[in-house]
Amino acid sequence: MSEDAAENLTLDDARKVLASQPFSVLLGARLAELGPGRAVLEIPLVPELLQQFGFAHGGVLAYAADNALTFAAGTALGPSIVTTGMTLDYLRPAGGTHLRAVATVVSGSRRQALCRCEIYAVAEDSTQQLCAAAQGSARVIDLTR
Amino acid sequence: MSEDAAENLTLDDARKVLASQPFSVLLGARLAELGPGRAVLEIPLVPELLQQFGFAHGGVLAYAADNALTFAAGTALGPSIVTTGMTLDYLRPAGGTHLRAVATVVSGSRRQALCRCEIYAVAEDSTQQLCAAAQGSARVIDLTR
Amino acid sequence: MSEDAAENLTLDDARKVLASQPFSVLLGARLAELGPGRAVLEIPLVPELLQQFGFAHGGVLAYAADNALTFAAGTALGPSIVTTGMTLDYLRPAGGTHLRAVATVVSGSRRQALCRCEIYAVAEDSTQQLCAAAQGSARVIDLTR
Amino acid sequence: MSEDAAENLTLDDARKVLASQPFSVLLGARLAELGPGRAVLEIPLVPELLQQFGFAHGGVLAYAADNALTFAAGTALGPSIVTTGMTLDYLRPAGGTHLRAVATVVSGSRRQALCRCEIYAVAEDSTQQLCAAAQGSARVIDLTR
Repeated sequence: MSEDAAENLTLDDARKVLASQPFSVLLGARLAELGPGRAVLEIPLVPELLQQFGFAHGGVLAYAADNALTFAAGTALGPSIVTTGMTLDYLRPAGGTHLRAVATVVSGSRRQALCRCEIYAVAEDSTQQLCAAAQGSARVIDLTR
Repeated sequence: MSEDAAENLTLDDARKVLASQPFSVLLGARLAELGPGRAVLEIPLVPELLQQFGFAHGGVLAYAADNALTFAAGTALGPSIVTTGMTLDYLRPAGGTHLRAVATVVSGSRRQALCRCEIYAVAEDSTQQLCAAAQGSARVIDLTR
Repeated sequence: MSEDAAENLTLDDARKVLASQPFSVLLGARLAELGPGRAVLEIPLVPELLQQFGFAHGGVLAYAADNALTFAAGTALGPSIVTTGMTLDYLRPAGGTHLRAVATVVSGSRRQALCRCEIYAVAEDSTQQLCAAAQGSARVIDLTR
Repeated sequence: MSEDAAENLTLDDARKVLASQPFSVLLGARLAELGPGRAVLEIPLVPELLQQFGFAHGGVLAYAADNALTFAAGTALGPSIVTTGMTLDYLRPAGGTHLRAVATVVSGSRRQALCRCEIYAVAEDSTQQLCAAAQGSARVIDLTR
């Protein structure tokens, strides 16, 4: 993982990127942490993000996984990347005050990074429960194609 | 695939389920079609659903895949189901007027269904381009556990 | 999908590639069909390929999916490719005389192809049953990296 | 994760299960470690397991992931389980003397377990390099269906 790349994506930079994504603004996502090979994204569980049984909609968890994976990859690859795909396993219904998606880089080259992400549902008393887990990849956008 | 189950989830029923999901309402999703082993979900690409480059956010595509897969599975399994997981491959940036997620059941038993989904970006002139493809599963909620 | 690429990988060529893979020879795999965007790989279910209950081992199905996907992608991308990953869902135990893995290209660019694969267990009377389904990608090896 | 279940699958028991799988015997797989929520499977890279460029065939890595995930899940769920699916990302060509697949349980209930697996290529000097990563699930066989 290139340190240069990591320097290219500071927490401040990454927060600006997040703020420039209208969908992330709509969901109220915030980057809680960002470091080499790691990103933590939090989403308050307001009523608009739930499904019919009062838990976080699966699509909100999928958004959280997708975006946390991409920011973690960005710390290894720099900001000009595209997420190529992900697998998401749902483990249990996600309730509580907010979601916390913790993504880490498992393996990175100059061009590609494989990341994993755990999504926790955080309760009012700060206890957290793993409710989904993902694995996904991002790669540098190839402008020469 | 049980016909009884399919009868348990008519298009009208499914639209009521969708309308009871606050997150689906927030995203403006509508069920365009529903039949045995098949569901088509559409999402208008309003500015709030985009990322920083003006295309649909990956999280919107992930929501579309997750929900279309679940409704297709519901036509085979009935409404008391849970999505267990999915894989989503992003193929190209999704622009245009709306997304169209077409999900079909590949294999179903009484308890579980495997589905696939293609997500198309539809342009103003109605041409559509495949921009993501997913594979995922749902199973009947087991109340006896 | 480039026709040039498809011409680059004829059934004869592909069979030579398969014959040059010691692991494919060990498993007795044969390419039954190859055409633009499509490959069919067959594996006789000899006792050595089974698990403890007398069905095909999951690893044999995973091999079949991996290799069928790669040959289907090869018809679109040419022979210098690498499989980047796949998802495999097991649907039911696979018995019978042989496995038949049918892979098709869902979306291809000059550099990358997304494929899907269905694996059937074929019985002595030629009836076949879907026992696993996969989705996976391959891309052209980038020699300039 | 039930301790009873873990006690139900000791390393000795698991080695007997492995020895009863003809395909695992064909591949020369051995269980190097087994403990609560964890299994390590090793496969010597003999010539029969390679592809045309002299590296481990992708199907061998897929076998290793599938079986290591299942044994790790077995420590949580007991021996009567079935693998429901997995995702495998290939990271780099796998050479060396043997493969080492390390699988761990990420989340387990009484009925289902989600596992992850890293596959390392181990060189003659014992250095190891991550060459693939997987995520997959297993669940208890439901005899009441």
